[in-house]
Amino acid sequence: MSRRRRIAAALAVPAAFVALSAAAAPRSAATAAEAAAAARAWRDAHGAEILADFARLLALPNVASDGPGIRANARAIAGELERRGFAVEVAAPPGAPEAPPVVFAELPADAPGGAGRTVVLYAHYDGQPVEAERWTNPPWSPTLYTGAIEAGGTRRPLPAAGEPVDPDWRIYARSAGDDKAPIQALLAAVDALAAAGLARRVDVKVLLDGEEEAGSPHLAAHVERLAGRLAADGWLFLDGPVHQSGRPQLFFGVRGIAGLDLTVYGANRHLHSGHYGNWAPNPILELARLLAGMKGEDGRVRVAGFYDTVEPLGEAERKALAAIERELPGFEDDLRRELGLAASEAGGAPYAERIALSSLNVRGFVGASVGETARNVIPPSATASLDVRLVAGNDPEAMLDRIEDHLRAQRYHLVRDEPTAAERLEHPKIVRAVRRPGYRAVRTPMDGPFAVWAAAAAEAAAPALAGDEDGTTVLRLPTLGGSLPLHVIADRLAAPIVGLPIANHDDNQHAPDENLRLANLFYGIDLLAALLAAPAPR
Amino acid sequence: MSRRRRIAAALAVPAAFVALSAAAAPRSAATAAEAAAAARAWRDAHGAEILADFARLLALPNVASDGPGIRANARAIAGELERRGFAVEVAAPPGAPEAPPVVFAELPADAPGGAGRTVVLYAHYDGQPVEAERWTNPPWSPTLYTGAIEAGGTRRPLPAAGEPVDPDWRIYARSAGDDKAPIQALLAAVDALAAAGLARRVDVKVLLDGEEEAGSPHLAAHVERLAGRLAADGWLFLDGPVHQSGRPQLFFGVRGIAGLDLTVYGANRHLHSGHYGNWAPNPILELARLLAGMKGEDGRVRVAGFYDTVEPLGEAERKALAAIERELPGFEDDLRRELGLAASEAGGAPYAERIALSSLNVRGFVGASVGETARNVIPPSATASLDVRLVAGNDPEAMLDRIEDHLRAQRYHLVRDEPTAAERLEHPKIVRAVRRPGYRAVRTPMDGPFAVWAAAAAEAAAPALAGDEDGTTVLRLPTLGGSLPLHVIADRLAAPIVGLPIANHDDNQHAPDENLRLANLFYGIDLLAALLAAPAPR
Repeated sequence: MSRRRRIAAALAVPAAFVALSAAAAPRSAATAAEAAAAARAWRDAHGAEILADFARLLALPNVASDGPGIRANARAIAGELERRGFAVEVAAPPGAPEAPPVVFAELPADAPGGAGRTVVLYAHYDGQPVEAERWTNPPWSPTLYTGAIEAGGTRRPLPAAGEPVDPDWRIYARSAGDDKAPIQALLAAVDALAAAGLARRVDVKVLLDGEEEAGSPHLAAHVERLAGRLAADGWLFLDGPVHQSGRPQLFFGVRGIAGLDLTVYGANRHLHSGHYGNWAPNPILELARLLAGMKGEDGRVRVAGFYDTVEPLGEAERKALAAIERELPGFEDDLRRELGLAASEAGGAPYAERIALSSLNVRGFVGASVGETARNVIPPSATASLDVRLVAGNDPEAMLDRIEDHLRAQRYHLVRDEPTAAERLEHPKIVRAVRRPGYRAVRTPMDGPFAVWAAAAAEAAAPALAGDEDGTTVLRLPTLGGSLPLHVIADRLAAPIVGLPIANHDDNQHAPDENLRLANLFYGIDLLAALLAAPAPR
Repeated sequence: MSRRRRIAAALAVPAAFVALSAAAAPRSAATAAEAAAAARAWRDAHGAEILADFARLLALPNVASDGPGIRANARAIAGELERRGFAVEVAAPPGAPEAPPVVFAELPADAPGGAGRTVVLYAHYDGQPVEAERWTNPPWSPTLYTGAIEAGGTRRPLPAAGEPVDPDWRIYARSAGDDKAPIQALLAAVDALAAAGLARRVDVKVLLDGEEEAGSPHLAAHVERLAGRLAADGWLFLDGPVHQSGRPQLFFGVRGIAGLDLTVYGANRHLHSGHYGNWAPNPILELARLLAGMKGEDGRVRVAGFYDTVEPLGEAERKALAAIERELPGFEDDLRRELGLAASEAGGAPYAERIALSSLNVRGFVGASVGETARNVIPPSATASLDVRLVAGNDPEAMLDRIEDHLRAQRYHLVRDEPTAAERLEHPKIVRAVRRPGYRAVRTPMDGPFAVWAAAAAEAAAPALAGDEDGTTVLRLPTLGGSLPLHVIADRLAAPIVGLPIANHDDNQHAPDENLRLANLFYGIDLLAALLAAPAPR
């Protein structure tokens, strides 16, 4: 126990909290459908209290680089888990005491005789950085709306205890969707099963990452540290959005990621654009030219070798994509219309085909300023930030090497720090390239009993998303467009991995006005109740 | 007098103020050289007091869009002028009571019998907007350094009264160079002549613009309002920097200016770059492509018709440029080295040749963000701000038309406001173009007695810049690279116009850490003393 730090509760006792008091009662076995129905009844009665608890969790600033903030999140979540009977450990990575801690929690099955089957749930409690001035409300002041703001939703107070909760309402806050939703859903699911007297028939382990949005640099160290305690029949990654059609989805792979920040230099100080315009090189224009040369209007990346290592999709993956297209004819047109796009990239090539390719994205570009603070200058530098999404076969470092080769081929002198005065005078074109940590893509098998079990739980919870009892088809996606550190698990453990997202696809994750549609929170509660109650596969 | 508002002094009485008390004494005539010498003696004795006055003036925030701030500047300057015997009028433009006022002031000659010759001095008291976070010190907290910050200058307190002032010191504040320096220089020059008992042999009128950095939208209305009161033998535009070599210069033309802000649109909200990268168009990349297509690596603008209306330089102008090249062999290489540039644009084409061409500059580009707040997104839009410098023959509106034609030729649908949902779904490429007010270039004759008189004064004051008594050649520049509203005068009045800059060329005008080298302030004082004391031409 010496390396184990039990953390006292940091949040007020939630009104909806009942799990511990009910824990002593005998439990009965339930199917996934029965457990989901019990969860639905629980959240119908206690929706307002669950929402109040979620708002308290969302009020905690959670950017990975903010040490005190991130540790306050870990403590609060640990408290909630302990109160529901989890054994909790909050620990920084070995040798990095200031890095965001992992919250590791274990809750054994309470079915008679136990389950003997074990599942690890992965989620993360950190969020992307914010540009607070671009948010309608402050990012850590959770605010309830009657619908999506852009669709005319209006602000309303949190409901009083017992008041009904409309599943179309949305709660706005950083990490509402990415990725505190599954944490809140798990807490409520445990409460719901306890209140209904239904047994949990799997041993649950929970691994909550505190720096996923910073590239999970210490996740591997945590997995190695926890070693045998992570032995399980499978892993569920509770992250990402459900399908754009609103249907539940499972995913069996993720794109990898790498990043590169590029700064191009002009004169060593700001110059008056009148006195020097046409004579002094303009780094904004040079950088624009550099980026324009990296990707054509046809959507094809022009960096030599960029697609050389792409492994094509296998037979099973192509079949799964074809099944989705059969299930959802015209879905991409609907998505385009929803997003206000007259055309998608690459001449309208299918989404699934595009996501199966390595991608190069300019995630930010800043040179001097625009709007109120724009001035008639040639700035000394301009910076762009790129993210590269990787598919199976791509090595993160090698992909960044290809981009840097491209820079050199454009006659740029590449530096890692601010150029020196001597470098400036020697090289007409200078680019500073700063690499960001990355990781590879992962594809896992799409069949097997673990995947069947997860799909059954999603099927049982699906009515929460459909808004009626008819349910809706669960989609099986070979790979998510986004990136999650599945590789850390895949590289070290033999267990199957399935991705099981909860958030709405239009949750503005990574962006201003991130939000969660409450129907999706409810789906998560029903889903986790079904998972915990129904027998896990061997 | 009903339209005339005499403004009470807003600043404390300056320690160096002596003009009014000396005004009653009989005055003697002096040559330009004698007047400059008297000014030099005055500022040698009172440099610290002059600097303290200047710091008070620079402490007043002066962005044209800040009405209360800009009016406080006008009142303060009016007070200083009145205290020195000027008749002052501070007036908003007709029909625009909230617009920045013009300070118009008159000081008749005090030579026996008067001068009968009249000069109008133009300067402006507003400054460019600031990005305060990029300044070493707050922009309106004037701060003294022992030299340029980038050259290792260190911060030091303002000198005590009577303490000597080093001409290499620099004072850092918005508008230190552009364009409060000539205002302070005029005040000190009047004091210096009074203290030395030297007569002013010209009638001086002063027109101080309060919105030059906003394009002087009301200057024409002011000139029409003041009408006959502006009758003069010539105009001096006290703005812009001295030559990059440090030598005094006169200029006989300016480039015109126009501007265009371009916003390119993607999806109607931020998208996760993983889930949508490679499928949803990225407006940053689209805008980069658009800008890259507007100007080639050879420095040539690719907008059709961009150079069609350029009037080539005349014989006199070409000769003047040749004279500068003879006077300053290798000057451009020195300038490149100073600015840390291995090469200038367009394969090293001569500066004078480049400045004689219309130019297209990207003064700012912002799409999402970089650095700490960068996130893995595809942003909904990206914006660039362009400024276009015009030469003789270019019409501002027509030049913007050419650029907009170019946008359409790139298959962009052009809008003036945020695109509607219907426009988004109809057009794959949408650009919002917002025009900024502009004006044409002006070239004035380089010969005539007025120019000779101005050059003689600059010659007399030149030792202040050279740092010794030997003086240094006054350069005669056909056109300044920058823009000044000379056209307002040239279109309405027949008087000759000469530009007579004071500030150092490396004053970071329009940029963070704007500054004035004190030698340049001293040059301005000597110059204005020489101008006021020596007979003006007919």
